[in-house]
Amino acid sequence: MALSKKPTTGMKEILPREMEIRDYVIRVIKDTYGKFGFSSIETPCVENIANLCSKQGGDNEKLIFKILKRGEKLNLETAKSEEDLVDSGLRYDLTVPLVRFYSNNAANLPTPFKALQIGNVWRADRPQRGRYRQFMQCDIDILGEASNLAEIELILATTTTISKLGFKGFQIRINDRRILKAMAAYAGFQEADYDGIFITLDKMDKIGTDGVRAELLERGYGDEAQCDTYLDLFAMVETAENPIAALMDKVGEFLDAEVMASFTEIVESVRATKADTFELVFDPTLVRGMSYYTGTIFEIAMPEFGGSCGGGGRYDKMIGKFTGTDVPACGFSIGFERIVLLLLESGFQIPNEEKKVAYLIEKGVKGQALCDIIAKAQEERKTGVKVLVERMNKNKKFQKEQLQKEGYVDFVEFYKDPIKK
Amino acid sequence: MALSKKPTTGMKEILPREMEIRDYVIRVIKDTYGKFGFSSIETPCVENIANLCSKQGGDNEKLIFKILKRGEKLNLETAKSEEDLVDSGLRYDLTVPLVRFYSNNAANLPTPFKALQIGNVWRADRPQRGRYRQFMQCDIDILGEASNLAEIELILATTTTISKLGFKGFQIRINDRRILKAMAAYAGFQEADYDGIFITLDKMDKIGTDGVRAELLERGYGDEAQCDTYLDLFAMVETAENPIAALMDKVGEFLDAEVMASFTEIVESVRATKADTFELVFDPTLVRGMSYYTGTIFEIAMPEFGGSCGGGGRYDKMIGKFTGTDVPACGFSIGFERIVLLLLESGFQIPNEEKKVAYLIEKGVKGQALCDIIAKAQEERKTGVKVLVERMNKNKKFQKEQLQKEGYVDFVEFYKDPIKK
Repeated sequence: MALSKKPTTGMKEILPREMEIRDYVIRVIKDTYGKFGFSSIETPCVENIANLCSKQGGDNEKLIFKILKRGEKLNLETAKSEEDLVDSGLRYDLTVPLVRFYSNNAANLPTPFKALQIGNVWRADRPQRGRYRQFMQCDIDILGEASNLAEIELILATTTTISKLGFKGFQIRINDRRILKAMAAYAGFQEADYDGIFITLDKMDKIGTDGVRAELLERGYGDEAQCDTYLDLFAMVETAENPIAALMDKVGEFLDAEVMASFTEIVESVRATKADTFELVFDPTLVRGMSYYTGTIFEIAMPEFGGSCGGGGRYDKMIGKFTGTDVPACGFSIGFERIVLLLLESGFQIPNEEKKVAYLIEKGVKGQALCDIIAKAQEERKTGVKVLVERMNKNKKFQKEQLQKEGYVDFVEFYKDPIKK
Repeated sequence: MALSKKPTTGMKEILPREMEIRDYVIRVIKDTYGKFGFSSIETPCVENIANLCSKQGGDNEKLIFKILKRGEKLNLETAKSEEDLVDSGLRYDLTVPLVRFYSNNAANLPTPFKALQIGNVWRADRPQRGRYRQFMQCDIDILGEASNLAEIELILATTTTISKLGFKGFQIRINDRRILKAMAAYAGFQEADYDGIFITLDKMDKIGTDGVRAELLERGYGDEAQCDTYLDLFAMVETAENPIAALMDKVGEFLDAEVMASFTEIVESVRATKADTFELVFDPTLVRGMSYYTGTIFEIAMPEFGGSCGGGGRYDKMIGKFTGTDVPACGFSIGFERIVLLLLESGFQIPNEEKKVAYLIEKGVKGQALCDIIAKAQEERKTGVKVLVERMNKNKKFQKEQLQKEGYVDFVEFYKDPIKK
């Protein structure tokens, strides 16, 4: 019976060259976050369907790969809807599983708990170039740390990791949901309109101040005077020598002084100890779509890549929604697939890669002669060299060309009759 | 809305301690096989349902987690059977995906192709202690190598890996399907009975020679004389000084001399170059259940663990069944989950693990003092130390006890008022 040769629609096969880079990136991530005291955990790829459909996942809940019940539990005749047919599904992110994991295992975990997860997630999105239905996410979360040490450590750990991967000249943009709200309050907008206003504000990059102004008015969020007050704030921050202090002067009455002090401390601590591979920038237009963020929010912007290459923030109310008890939580997600893509496209060379040598053995070489060659290979491997041992093909030239593509630079040929050599 | 806290039935959560060991095992596997020229590849966890149900998977095909069609393609009203509802499923092994991958990508891969796969597979088995519905497999395959260099390299690479993980005193048992057949032919059994005879022979470990004899007779495989001839062969091999030569003397007429020469060469090459952590043993009772094996078969036996800890063999006819063109193939699968379990239960310590230090910072420490502490941590991390930075909890003693369980041996405490120190 013939197989269909193609992978499932929208899913990707990973060939050796990309795998080497993925493995390298995973290794750097695990090593570097490890240095910051993050522990790796893993949850099953399959979650109970009720957990996946708990309204925490937003639009992703429409994209779930659902898994059919099995055995007696599956009854096609009485099934009236999809819900009767399925009992589980593939996870669409690592956050829902993390929250479930934490609520199940908190007693066996330290407080605070610093978790690192690298794993596949699945979304039945419309397939398109560069977007796959199975992709890897990389999330770092600190659960149970109420202080801004969580933010500081997350930003330092993430930027150290990204820098170790060879990136430089990138930005970490930082903001706080409470600053966003204070600015809207200062302008006199209705609180009910805040979410809508922030959706428009989020487009500042693309449509500029005039575009944002027009859209705010068009959507009926406040009057011209309010929009001017609002947008003048952003202009003021952009030119101020000390943007945070300048903003506090204006919107101070709408913002807890402690919030701003803590925010300032994050910015100053990171700046004081950071590498010179990136800048930390206060960006009052940073919104981040997820409605579950309650405080600080941040994003990685890379010049080589138009959009964001990762981001995160504080979500102190999410675990409580699931378990009934709030636990302070803050996370940072790295855009794993984008980073791999950037490295692949830039022709990235893995540093300190072992030398690759290929031994090509003529078909007639047997017995003791073969043993000697294999022993030689074993010895050379012990010195750190990668040694491929294979039979010489009839078309030796083509074989070598193929191997050169795989990074084999040295060839050693073994013949039955030494004269041939 | 409350989450169900437990993972999906039969699936396992992996906590930090086990993850450290898993990550270490994966690292040793990738490093060591890399030295032998194996390249990592990855295929999607989801495969087309037709590929999964192609009769190559044996009983595993009954255990597939099937995935519901989505959108317009799902029509509950016209669906008459399961087949109408699903379009894909979770892979139950890594062999079917490898064969599909190879047939799709052979043009972009070197010949021979040495593949390393480490990935999760899913089987809806009845949950039981130590057996999970999601588990990791680790397969090494050489595709396109007809000569016994494939077997030699697979055995050396696998034993080197297992030895690097600290195991010693284990055995690699080796046999050949063609030797099995020749011995049965020598005894005069019917060829149609061979598969049944081998199923009985496979129980030699458990029921002994007498048990095998009784079962062969009971099942009607040959008469008493034939059974005696057959079982005498095994007794002879067990005591012979040179078992392979002794066996060849007897069953030579039923066995191609080249097969035996090649088999001998595998045994001798491995013995000549192997480490002293294991023995290579010719075991004429080794059967391996999979009917797709065509030649050499082998298995890892570990004294610490009753059963097999991995195994494999040559399957030259399988790719052809899928693609129409035979490709020589030989593989070795390591029992990843069993190895992790053995290491966990033995209290295994990862060698050369970095030192772990925890900085505990009193709540009142802020501003410049905090910056200084973070800078100190960053410096210490650069020297290879794992530095956890966190706020001191009210119950400092409990906090330290928790951290000690996670391997933190050194604590540095920072107070607002230095006198407290």
